[in-house]
Amino acid sequence: MLAFEVQARSGGARAGRLTTPHGVVETPVFMPVGTAGAVKAILQRDLRELGASIVLANTYHMMLRPGDALVAERGGLHGFTGWNAPFLTDSGGYQVFSLAALRQISEEGVRFQSHLDGSAHLLSPERSIEIQTNLGADVIMAFDECPPSTAPREAVAAATERTTRWAERSRAAHRRGDQWLFGIVQGGLDRELRERSARQLLALDFPGYAIGGLAVGEQKPDRERVLDFTTPLLPEARPRYLMGVGTPEDILEAVARGVDMFDCVLPTRNARNGQLFTRRGRVSVRNARFRSSPLPPDPECTCYTCRTTSLAYLRHLHMTGEIVAATLLTIHNLAYYLDTLRGIRQSILLGRFEEFRQETLRALAAPLAGLAFALAFPVIGLAVMAWMAMRPVVKRAMPIARFARNVGLFLAAPFIGLAYALAFPFVGIGMLAWKGVRAAVRR
Amino acid sequence: MLAFEVQARSGGARAGRLTTPHGVVETPVFMPVGTAGAVKAILQRDLRELGASIVLANTYHMMLRPGDALVAERGGLHGFTGWNAPFLTDSGGYQVFSLAALRQISEEGVRFQSHLDGSAHLLSPERSIEIQTNLGADVIMAFDECPPSTAPREAVAAATERTTRWAERSRAAHRRGDQWLFGIVQGGLDRELRERSARQLLALDFPGYAIGGLAVGEQKPDRERVLDFTTPLLPEARPRYLMGVGTPEDILEAVARGVDMFDCVLPTRNARNGQLFTRRGRVSVRNARFRSSPLPPDPECTCYTCRTTSLAYLRHLHMTGEIVAATLLTIHNLAYYLDTLRGIRQSILLGRFEEFRQETLRALAAPLAGLAFALAFPVIGLAVMAWMAMRPVVKRAMPIARFARNVGLFLAAPFIGLAYALAFPFVGIGMLAWKGVRAAVRR
Repeated sequence: MLAFEVQARSGGARAGRLTTPHGVVETPVFMPVGTAGAVKAILQRDLRELGASIVLANTYHMMLRPGDALVAERGGLHGFTGWNAPFLTDSGGYQVFSLAALRQISEEGVRFQSHLDGSAHLLSPERSIEIQTNLGADVIMAFDECPPSTAPREAVAAATERTTRWAERSRAAHRRGDQWLFGIVQGGLDRELRERSARQLLALDFPGYAIGGLAVGEQKPDRERVLDFTTPLLPEARPRYLMGVGTPEDILEAVARGVDMFDCVLPTRNARNGQLFTRRGRVSVRNARFRSSPLPPDPECTCYTCRTTSLAYLRHLHMTGEIVAATLLTIHNLAYYLDTLRGIRQSILLGRFEEFRQETLRALAAPLAGLAFALAFPVIGLAVMAWMAMRPVVKRAMPIARFARNVGLFLAAPFIGLAYALAFPFVGIGMLAWKGVRAAVRR
Repeated sequence: MLAFEVQARSGGARAGRLTTPHGVVETPVFMPVGTAGAVKAILQRDLRELGASIVLANTYHMMLRPGDALVAERGGLHGFTGWNAPFLTDSGGYQVFSLAALRQISEEGVRFQSHLDGSAHLLSPERSIEIQTNLGADVIMAFDECPPSTAPREAVAAATERTTRWAERSRAAHRRGDQWLFGIVQGGLDRELRERSARQLLALDFPGYAIGGLAVGEQKPDRERVLDFTTPLLPEARPRYLMGVGTPEDILEAVARGVDMFDCVLPTRNARNGQLFTRRGRVSVRNARFRSSPLPPDPECTCYTCRTTSLAYLRHLHMTGEIVAATLLTIHNLAYYLDTLRGIRQSILLGRFEEFRQETLRALAAPLAGLAFALAFPVIGLAVMAWMAMRPVVKRAMPIARFARNVGLFLAAPFIGLAYALAFPFVGIGMLAWKGVRAAVRR
């Protein structure tokens, strides 16, 4: 009923198929986050239309409200929400460390107070698995300890060891054959700890592995370095899930290093804050230059929002605080993420992932190149002003100079335009090269 | 390009067709309110799927944000919002009296400060028509003065006279042939003022007439009384629009009195507050009895929400503060209103509106009948307790009484059940009758 196969490789990237009781998930895949059993601000119909194949729900949130017993009574997440496609639930570990109040961590588990009403709860490996059994997702996660990324090495080491013991208890508590339980590799930014964690978890023989403890505030090169040495430790034939990552750029880098599954609140949360993800990078819909723009948010996108909504209207709806602005932006941002992941998968199947990655990163960096030009304008302005100041002098001194200047400008114009046009991609490439050099130096 | 015809009559009710440059509107019609150029919390696609044929936008809100000049630049409301069906704009009169700060009313118009940023503005008949010309709706309204319903008769009389003078200036300022300008009959609850207002406005020969100054806090019988003597004053061949009304019951009563067009924020605003309109009356989705209910909000409804969402899930989404709860409730409430109006129209075409009205009102009153039963329970409970207290005495005194009681209960059981079942509709009819009596007495 549950299976995973790698269908194609392109460099380090893999394209695969994860078969679950509620349908097939083609990887690499982005899983929209449905914290409370619903992806925020979007109807299931629209989610389905965008081609979302699997949704993540948060164990921590569902256990507190409406409660896993009620969800079980209504037929698990699938019955309760009516989403008839695969679900993944996290273990609650990350949320209990980031949201709950008055945490007491012991070997047994974590006692905490609900961030909603202060009620007392326990999350342990056994309880987490019990909840996830009640929720009935297709893929569930072992209960792990998530120390802050700034924690000292000893604390990270202790949390990593405990995560292994909790993974063992999670596995022992897990009964349902129609759910896959994944282990979570911890170890912070430390190579030795990551290697130890992976070795211990591999001994427990999980059908899939997640990489946890990233996307918690560390630098991008650090994250990529950890992926560089962690993904090769995981079994080739099993799915790899990078938890909580990330930007489109992050996902491209992680796919290049062999990761198959992703989740992140960025496209949905930022939508509600008015940020658009586009093929040319991120932009705020509040931007005054969109005030009367008849253009769609992303001219290359075919989502409902881009088919029907101008930037001027979208900006107006967002500025007015209309709920429907959140819906329209969520539809587009998820369309962008899901389309990008489909593009990635396609390029892997065609054996040209590296080209796709370079092209996508270049396009995403274009606005940065634009910014560089914008900064160049004052300099050009100053030069023009200097010329204007000099002009009377020049004019009086030699009329022929004026003629020469005009002819010169006339002849040079097309070349100046061409130089500008050519400079665009080069600036982008230059920036990417610089990032590569910087990453290499750090490594 | 603009036309109205009455197609059928059933009692005082009429079914008609309003033809506009952006499509045909079949009446009686409910117009969802799209204050800022968008019906709140619902995508245009869903609005279209529900069969909404015309949307109302507020002149006051659009003039302040994004500004009517910008909307004109983007092709009017149709171009700006992409809604390719008829629009109606109000005159801004009602909002300027209910929302704006520091109003100064003069014969020229109303000077006020924006409720958004305190900026100073003028709304006059000429400015209102200029804005509505820029917005480009298919039906627009003359600028009127709306005194509070509690105002003394002289104040209402003065406002009504001024509304006539402003209607004349509105008509003079109006140029576009592809828009119909409606006059608004004012006059509060006073028969003489209403008659004078109607007479004066009829002399200005508007293609349609609205009844304003109702749904502003007056009692339902007062409203119905005003309709009773106002609608017969309006031309038979022209559309009649009752502004800001109302509940499903209100709409049924107004249709019975010959009104064709309605708008109201109730279905959309109450959706965001968790109130469901159903064929059995209104109910809050927060109700604890829905906690684990697998039923749809309204079992007789075929909207997206009722097709896909259980009350348990909907309640959870609302309690969790999910935006999508507002969307799901809005879809259902608008479906209910639009379906009800279609039912009304159908019944008029079939010549049986009165039956439809009675049936619908009876169904809507059913929960009230239920409430009466709920109140009856303590009484029944007290009787049972009294019987329990008496029981030992009775038992000791005459064992034959016990036998007789059991036989009696056994024989009576089906009749008691039947009596309960029969009582349901009678209680509802009784209530309606009482309402009728009360209304007649007040009249």
